[in-house]
Parts: sequence; structure tokens; C-alpha cells
Amino acid sequence: MSHNIFAAESSWMAHGSALQDVILTSRIRLARNIRGFPFPHRTTMESKEALTSRVEVLLPDLNGSSGKEWQLVRMNSLKSNLRGILLDKHLVSPQLVHNPDGASLLLSSDEEVAIMLNEEDHLRLQVLLPGEQLNASWETATRIDDILENELDYAFASDLGYLTACPTNVGTGLRASVMAHLPALAISKKIPRLLTAINQMGFVVRGIYGEGSEAAGQVYQISNQVSLGSAEGEVLQSLQAIVKQVVDEERNTRRSLQNSTEQELIDRIGRSIGTLKNARLMDTAEAMQLLSDLRLGINLQRVYGIDCQTVSILLVKIQPSWLSVEYPQENASLAWQRAAVLREALSQTSID
Amino acid sequence: MSHNIFAAESSWMAHGSALQDVILTSRIRLARNIRGFPFPHRTTMESKEALTSRVEVLLPDLNGSSGKEWQLVRMNSLKSNLRGILLDKHLVSPQLVHNPDGASLLLSSDEEVAIMLNEEDHLRLQVLLPGEQLNASWETATRIDDILENELDYAFASDLGYLTACPTNVGTGLRASVMAHLPALAISKKIPRLLTAINQMGFVVRGIYGEGSEAAGQVYQISNQVSLGSAEGEVLQSLQAIVKQVVDEERNTRRSLQNSTEQELIDRIGRSIGTLKNARLMDTAEAMQLLSDLRLGINLQRVYGIDCQTVSILLVKIQPSWLSVEYPQENASLAWQRAAVLREALSQTSID
Repeated sequence: MSHNIFAAESSWMAHGSALQDVILTSRIRLARNIRGFPFPHRTTMESKEALTSRVEVLLPDLNGSSGKEWQLVRMNSLKSNLRGILLDKHLVSPQLVHNPDGASLLLSSDEEVAIMLNEEDHLRLQVLLPGEQLNASWETATRIDDILENELDYAFASDLGYLTACPTNVGTGLRASVMAHLPALAISKKIPRLLTAINQMGFVVRGIYGEGSEAAGQVYQISNQVSLGSAEGEVLQSLQAIVKQVVDEERNTRRSLQNSTEQELIDRIGRSIGTLKNARLMDTAEAMQLLSDLRLGINLQRVYGIDCQTVSILLVKIQPSWLSVEYPQENASLAWQRAAVLREALSQTSID
Repeated sequence: MSHNIFAAESSWMAHGSALQDVILTSRIRLARNIRGFPFPHRTTMESKEALTSRVEVLLPDLNGSSGKEWQLVRMNSLKSNLRGILLDKHLVSPQLVHNPDGASLLLSSDEEVAIMLNEEDHLRLQVLLPGEQLNASWETATRIDDILENELDYAFASDLGYLTACPTNVGTGLRASVMAHLPALAISKKIPRLLTAINQMGFVVRGIYGEGSEAAGQVYQISNQVSLGSAEGEVLQSLQAIVKQVVDEERNTRRSLQNSTEQELIDRIGRSIGTLKNARLMDTAEAMQLLSDLRLGINLQRVYGIDCQTVSILLVKIQPSWLSVEYPQENASLAWQRAAVLREALSQTSID
């Protein structure tokens, strides 16, 4: 029996992992291609289908060896708002949502491992875990990768490493990243300086929801830029060092806000909660900003009646995809439904 | 036993009067001067004191004839924040607060009648009643005026009428006014047009709290401009006609907002309530704006757990004077105390 992959909840939203007051998730992504098949952007539907079948036959192997249950989801079998939910849960890329023809998702039932087929590369293997779990993500990724490599003839060159559709992924094919919630640094206008420092270490910072230095929801993805020329271990170690520094800076800034401007901070969080509990119309960007304040309040132990896992679930439920799936018959606008979802979720929430 | 004139509550805040969803209060003010005493701005403290004594001896007459209990309050016996409370309750003028030396207030215990001594004129008699009660206010004012005129030699010229310190008050000495709450007209940007129309009828509109067309709290005072050349009855009739028109326009606009943009309206009121219930720091102007939305919501019968009388009381309690009297020992800022007062007052308030 396959679980409901369109539920708003996912395993990476679970709580109790390291540094999770700042680091929401750790992600390892491996880009792999199979010899004898053209890259997806230069191929036919028939070839994509053949590749999908080639991987689909490995499902029993995956089920047997990975300790997880797997299912294959063909993207063009899904309505766009269902594909959108998978995107909002960070299980697939925007490209897989917008170019669904011939593309598929191999997903473990715990949703920790997702393998996109016929995205930019033949295979894009992702492991997504809560908190700072880069090593654990890496171990899971290599274990799954080994299972696949046993059966598939990966495109590999001894001088270059794994061959990929885009040169930035050639080599290890590795992208390691974390999603970091940086509200105190954002409030204190310290994000631009941080971005510069991280860029100088060869890593890149992007707003998860929208680009720029004032990302909606104040959630930032930090990832390595290229995967040629650095061993996997070096990339992970560098990212872990950056994570440590970012966590320290965010925590110190939270502490400093609490010490120097506590009334303003609690006023800001209180107002955000008041708006979430009482508004009737809300757009996505405002909801993400208010939920960011709410998460900060929870982590500062000033907000009660809600937990961070619920906030992560709400970040899916406020998106147009989930709302349009959940309220297909309603005449009310998404802004109206979004506000109703938030009011209900926060009915027991208060600030001390 | 004299009642506490520094309580935030006053009788004009009571509810149940005509047109009170729009017209908060009706006010009649009569300017009177006594022969043989120089006008207050050209006189000595001794003369002011003599005038005060001349009026003070009438207290038994007032008590006996008016059906009310009276007390005399010398303004320079009060700290400035206590004088400020009387101003915020609309019982005295700014001038009496800022120039307290030699000035006094004769106040009936129901606070419906207030007589300022040695303000701009020797006597400024005010009757302030809830809702549209211009006729009732006028009747009470003339009854008290007659009691005083029996004992005092009013400065009166047969060609000009009552003589006053400022020419705009010569004649009847009458200023008739209403305080109107016009949130729908303000939201719909219809206030400037209304001001023009009312000005053309010889009446003037002022924001009660701050000047201009976007008065804080969206409460406007409409009053006659000059008191020479119009009989009292004409002034009252004109103002009553204006009141009828303003009430119609405000009510129609509220209805039209409910019909055409109900979600936006309820969203606005909901957000205001959420902020009032959850903010930790709030300045006076924001509090007045939010309380204006709250009052609108009560009058639209969408808000529960609070009434308009409480809103009027809160409009006194959020002012610096009341807060500094009530929390004299506190280190917290007025903005912090103000937010606390509002949170407590609205703890049972909700919007449907």
C-alpha cells in the first residue's frame, strides 16, 4: 500500500534533530546518467520511456536492499496542482513540475529519498533529512547510489568523474545543501554580509521562496556551487563548517535581539500571531513572513500551543497548490482559504 | 460626596441614544461673560479669583435648581496629567489644560454639564450628551444658563447679543457640535468631498484627534463657524440637517462596503482586532485607528465580547495622561502599558 504523497506533511518536517532551531533540513543530491541514453533535453519520449522502464525494473531491488518501500510516480499522470504539492514539499524540482512529459519520481515511502527520472539528468537522487544531518544524508545517498550503480551502467569518465547534462554538475555530481531559517539575521539586516562571506567560500545562498537577500519566510538554501575538483568529503566538511558559523551567528543575533530589544521582538512576534489568528485574506508572501516570526517565537520559547513541525506543514498548506487541491469546489479566493487554514491551525496559539 | 472625575468613563459614553452608530456625542457650548470683569486674557490673577468666587457662591443655587450635584475644580490644583484626563474626556478645552492658572471647572456629577471659568471667556458652559441629542443638550444648556443669568450680570449688547473675547463667538455665544465616527467614508476616501460640502453650509469639520482629512480614529467634530447673525434655532436646525445627511452617507457607505468588498472589510477589522489583542508596543495614533476599526465592527454586528461604550472608555485609557496617572511607578514605556491595557480589555473580543 502506497502512502499519500500529497499530504502536506513530510518526514523532513519531524523535529528533534541537531541544530534544528536554525537548520531546517539537510539535503544531498547526486546527478547520475546512464550510458547509451541521450541526455533528457536532447532525446525523444520513447527514449525517456525506455529509461524509465530500465529503472522501474529495479523497484524490487530497491525495496529489498534499501530497507524502504518505493513507488514510481509518472509526473504527467498528475494534475499540475498535485505536482505543485510535491514541489512545495521539496520532493521534486521546479523543472519536473513544469516539464512533466516523460519525467517520473521514484519515492521512498518515508519520503527521505526521492529519485527524479528525466529531469535535467537521467537520475537525480535526493536525500532530505531534518536538521543538520549532512553525514547521515550522505550515507543514505551513497547506499542507494550503490544499489543503483550495481544494476545501471553509469556514464563515468576516469578523468572527469560522473558525466552530467550541465558542466557544473560534472565530477562528483554532488550538491550538498541545507535550508537555514535566519530571521534574526534578516531582522538585523545582516544577510547581505553573510551571503558575501559564504560566496567567497565557493558556496551559494538562495532564498528558498524567492530570490534575493530578503527571501520570503527568511529561509535560505546554502549549497556548493560546482562539483568538479572537490572530493565529496571536502564539500561536506566545508558546508558543515559554514553551517556551524551560520548557526552561531543566527543564535547570537537572536540572543542579542532578546537582550537589547526584547519588547520590540515580542511585539513583532505578537502582532504576527494576532494577524495569523484574525486575518480573513492573506497572500502567500505575507503568510510566509508571519510564519517565520511564529517559528522564531517557538524557538525562543515564547510561543505556545503550536510546534515547528506544524509551521513546516503550514508552509505547504498555504501554497496555491495545496489550497486548490483541498478546496476544489470552493468559490472563495485562495487568499480567503489560506487565512482560514491559518486561523484554524493557530486557534490554540498564544504568546506569553 | 464628589464622584471621581478622573475615571476614564463618562456619561457621554453611555449607549442607546439616537444615531449613535455614527454620532458619538452632541455638544452645546455657550460663551458668557460678566460685566465689570476684564476678559481673562487681559486681566490679573486677582480679578480671575474674584470672578471664580463670584460664581462659586452660586453652587448651592446650581445644586438646588439644576437637579444635579456640582463641584468646583481649580485647574492649577491638579497635576498636568490629571488635567489631561479631563481634556481626553472632552470635559475641558486644551486652553484650560495648558493655562491652568486662575482657571476652574464647574462640573455636574453626571459630567453632562461642564462650566469652564476663565478660559477664553469668563464662562464657557458645555452640555455633552451621547448620540444625536442636540435638542436635549440645548434645553439643558439654556436651563443652566438661565440659573446663572438670574444671579450674574451677563455682558450683553442689544445690537450684538452676548459679548465675547473673540468676535467669532459674539452674538448667541453658541457653538453646537457633534462628534461623528466616519470610518466607512474615510476608508472610501470620501471625507474631503464631505468637508467641502459641510464648509459650504457655514459649518466646519475638524478631526477630534489631530487635524486634516485623515483624522486619527476617524472621529470628526462638525460645528458652526460663527455665532453672529443666526438665531440659535437656525444653527441647531442646520446642524441637524447636516447630521442627517452625514449619517445617511456613512451608513450607505458602510452598507456598500459590506456588499461590494465584505471580505476586505472583515479582513481589515479582523487584523485590527488581532493586533489589539497581541501587540506589545503601540503608539496612540495606531491604537486610535485600530479602535476605530473595532467600533465599526461592533456597529456592523460582526464583533463580539466588547461594546462601543468600552471603546469610548479605551480612547481615554490609551492616552498618555491616563496611562501616566494609572502606572506612575512603572518603568515600562507608555507604549508597553498602552498595549497591555488594550490586550486586557479585548481578551474576550472576537470577530465572527
